[in-house]
Amino acid sequence: MATDSAPTQAGSLLGLMQDDYPLTIKYILDRARTVNGRATVASFDGEGLTRATYREVGDRVDRLCGALTTLGVQPGDRVATFMWNRQEHLEAYLGIPSMGAVLHTLNLRLFPEQLQYIVEHAQDRVVIIEDTLVPLLAPAVAELGIVEHFIVVGDGPVEGLTGQVHRYEELLAAAPESFAYPEIADDRTAAALCYTSGTTGNPKGVLYSHRSTVLHAVGECMADTFGICGRDTVLPVVPMFHANAWGLPYSSTLTGANLVMPGKFLQAEPLAKLITGERVTVAAGVPTIWLDLLRYADEYRPDLSSLRVVPCGGAAVPRVLLEGFRERHGLNVVQAWGMTETSPLGAVAHAPHDVDEAAAAEFRLRAGQVSPLVDVRIVDAEGEPMAWDGEASGEVEVRGPWIASRYYEDPTGDDKFHDGWLRTGDVASIDDRGYIRITDRSKDVIKSGGEWISSVDLENELMGHPDVLEAAVIAKPDERWTERPLACVVVRPGSDTDAEALAAYLSGRVAKWWEPDEYVLIPEVPKTSVGKFDKKALRARLESGELRGAAGDQS
Amino acid sequence: MATDSAPTQAGSLLGLMQDDYPLTIKYILDRARTVNGRATVASFDGEGLTRATYREVGDRVDRLCGALTTLGVQPGDRVATFMWNRQEHLEAYLGIPSMGAVLHTLNLRLFPEQLQYIVEHAQDRVVIIEDTLVPLLAPAVAELGIVEHFIVVGDGPVEGLTGQVHRYEELLAAAPESFAYPEIADDRTAAALCYTSGTTGNPKGVLYSHRSTVLHAVGECMADTFGICGRDTVLPVVPMFHANAWGLPYSSTLTGANLVMPGKFLQAEPLAKLITGERVTVAAGVPTIWLDLLRYADEYRPDLSSLRVVPCGGAAVPRVLLEGFRERHGLNVVQAWGMTETSPLGAVAHAPHDVDEAAAAEFRLRAGQVSPLVDVRIVDAEGEPMAWDGEASGEVEVRGPWIASRYYEDPTGDDKFHDGWLRTGDVASIDDRGYIRITDRSKDVIKSGGEWISSVDLENELMGHPDVLEAAVIAKPDERWTERPLACVVVRPGSDTDAEALAAYLSGRVAKWWEPDEYVLIPEVPKTSVGKFDKKALRARLESGELRGAAGDQS
Repeated sequence: MATDSAPTQAGSLLGLMQDDYPLTIKYILDRARTVNGRATVASFDGEGLTRATYREVGDRVDRLCGALTTLGVQPGDRVATFMWNRQEHLEAYLGIPSMGAVLHTLNLRLFPEQLQYIVEHAQDRVVIIEDTLVPLLAPAVAELGIVEHFIVVGDGPVEGLTGQVHRYEELLAAAPESFAYPEIADDRTAAALCYTSGTTGNPKGVLYSHRSTVLHAVGECMADTFGICGRDTVLPVVPMFHANAWGLPYSSTLTGANLVMPGKFLQAEPLAKLITGERVTVAAGVPTIWLDLLRYADEYRPDLSSLRVVPCGGAAVPRVLLEGFRERHGLNVVQAWGMTETSPLGAVAHAPHDVDEAAAAEFRLRAGQVSPLVDVRIVDAEGEPMAWDGEASGEVEVRGPWIASRYYEDPTGDDKFHDGWLRTGDVASIDDRGYIRITDRSKDVIKSGGEWISSVDLENELMGHPDVLEAAVIAKPDERWTERPLACVVVRPGSDTDAEALAAYLSGRVAKWWEPDEYVLIPEVPKTSVGKFDKKALRARLESGELRGAAGDQS
Repeated sequence: MATDSAPTQAGSLLGLMQDDYPLTIKYILDRARTVNGRATVASFDGEGLTRATYREVGDRVDRLCGALTTLGVQPGDRVATFMWNRQEHLEAYLGIPSMGAVLHTLNLRLFPEQLQYIVEHAQDRVVIIEDTLVPLLAPAVAELGIVEHFIVVGDGPVEGLTGQVHRYEELLAAAPESFAYPEIADDRTAAALCYTSGTTGNPKGVLYSHRSTVLHAVGECMADTFGICGRDTVLPVVPMFHANAWGLPYSSTLTGANLVMPGKFLQAEPLAKLITGERVTVAAGVPTIWLDLLRYADEYRPDLSSLRVVPCGGAAVPRVLLEGFRERHGLNVVQAWGMTETSPLGAVAHAPHDVDEAAAAEFRLRAGQVSPLVDVRIVDAEGEPMAWDGEASGEVEVRGPWIASRYYEDPTGDDKFHDGWLRTGDVASIDDRGYIRITDRSKDVIKSGGEWISSVDLENELMGHPDVLEAAVIAKPDERWTERPLACVVVRPGSDTDAEALAAYLSGRVAKWWEPDEYVLIPEVPKTSVGKFDKKALRARLESGELRGAAGDQS
């Protein structure tokens, strides 16, 4: 979006505004407990809902901060959480940054060795943990000797935890009623830390600042993104250990939207009941969750009419999901694009208001229109910016006030950042309205004869074959073309679909030169800890000679 | 809203986000011409509408910046505008700050001596002026010799202008197609300048920064304020020389809302026709404008159904206006509070969603609920913060990222700023939801026996008398009580309402000790240049012995 820019520095005259007024999570906390003091957070435990007003949450946050201070937590220290979405997690979200410490949300779904690496890398002095999750974390961190205090939410067993073990409610009861918050004069101060579960190398930490968190929360309240406001009731199905639950805990407390916390009950039936019972207006989560809910809704027809928008992200949103909810249930599922490094709001796929319904449906299938305050571009292999013509495809780079500038103490990730831009690793085209259409991940794209072949497009086409369960396409080194596509396909048990049949199926559906040179039938595509196709593992098998295929095309 | 805050500095650890990514008007310009390139600005000239897309506006902005550079405009220089709301004014809004210069919007309604003072104080090197307005400005600035270039929009006569005189369209036609914008690396750089027409002392300049302007624009897009978005068509009736037309030109170009510019045609009939014809969704202006439109709408029933919100501010909004539009036309007129020093968004009076209609009507009559990112408090005479109980009344102070920190080169205004807060001069109570109810201006409040009497409340009560046309209540020095109220009243010609009748009317309507000691019948309340009651003039008359009244109360 940038136009010509001369390298000169303009503006000897500074404005006379309160430009140094810090944008802090403490401001959100103060607004939550005063202006929005009547709004509520309701936490589901599988049986019923526990409710508290934001005013009550504020009082408990005071006590939490006092308790953590007593345990020795200092400004800048990392305090980790290991919890599902619940009121206590919200208290940690508001309190830990407000006391000048860093909220570190540990991902429950990581492998033990990843958790171990992360706790050690972050040097978490304190972990607030849900009792039922103790068995998941204890083995991973017991031997580290880094965590000095575990604060257990709930009355369950605490076996396996080392260091000092406290009960959350007991600590709060013993803490003073009020807390003298430190002044956070510099809003670039670290507020929260979240590690990405990358498919290469060690997890990388993104260290959010107060300023970036507040601006991101405000961004979500804009009518063109999610328009979170005081009339909303927000159900963050996305876990609070995934990119700050997309910022919804902050935008909700900033505006006085009620929060409904689903705990670990992420199945279609309990979610539908929460939506109906609490008259939820905004429910946000990944496609898998909403695909389940769609099947459930088709069968049981729960009352979902309170929903005004259903943000969906974390992976490409299938057409059946968007159109199924819209056509059969009148619901507005909206694709959003982002990543841990982008806080995560990067783009939102509302359709333009001036196109017909058929065109609108295509816009909704894109990753989204670049969000206000975010700047985006696509670049070619030489790093040169490419046109926004909806055709040219290049790596997506973003910058803006809530985009990461570097990983936390890990120079091995420095190559993701250059000249103020973040390389997202996504390959996409952008149209003249700023809608991003992702065609691939940059590390998965196949460079053939100087052109790019989209592995994602090939996979989508292959998965359209009735007998194909999974398809992952990777690059195979090629002397003449540099790389050529190799398709790893899982077929339905009992099916006799072979390489030749697949090649015949693809013929005419993609450009001739895109057709894979080889097909390998495999029993299962390997997956990462968060369930994505692990193409790194497939490439390793190819290198070791494990993957042997058949040519589908004899030409 | 602030709670305990210890004076220690927290956070040795800084986040790793792009906290130095500058928030600039150049970003808004770039987004307007790309992502929002199809949106349009339509300018009314009394006959028809001239339309341009934001893409076309962007191209013209490039030329404008090139032309101004050729005329010698440097970063930091002030470039003034003297125009109604129209496309060229929008081009100045986007271009002048983007080239690193300072957009100075001159108020057409000021007295010549005020204009002269302001142009000299701001040292405006260039003025962009509408041809029809030349006679208004020329006499005021001809002798100053400060303005080097006048750029005249339109083909009308230019008599009386000194310095070099250019035609806007000729300059643009001669300018290069592209412009190399300077990098504005520090977003605290000055972007715009607007003088307040205070009732005391010289006008004071508020110098907006890029950062404050962008954050304010984003604030207006939040669903809880005005929710400006890409589906909107915005009619700024508020002039672009009043506090940046409340920021609407920037929030509209940021989001791709269409703009409809009414020029000087601010009467009810043309406004109604613009609203109907352009399907305007947001129309913003002062109460006087909307009172006229209400009368017109009652009589002619124009189709105003496209309006989703009608922001109204600049003065207290009368109940008849709010309720008349709501009940008879189904329109959502929303009171907003702010001032030049607050960019101006300070509070918006949407009713809470959880109260009944009778209570909602009362909430809508307040100045509004403090806006997100703005921090507000009320303080007593000693500067001590007071409770938010809806009862206690004190001077309103605000702070936040779009609040002024000082006036431009005028230390005589320094007493308005202290410890990071702006003294607004408004006296109000605040309730526990952050709704502000203004009871007076601090300089007009009457201090009687250690308590405050609201001159505004007394005036409102007096103006409820069927024979009273205008009422202004001022403080009269009193030996025993410090001050006592004196009411200056204009009665309907031919009416025999006298002091005694007025005293009898007020009795029982206000507290006994609030009742004015004296009533003076005057032919007219003196007004300031912007039409507000000039109580300074009344107080001067009182001091000189010119005001002589009759006691209404013989007790």
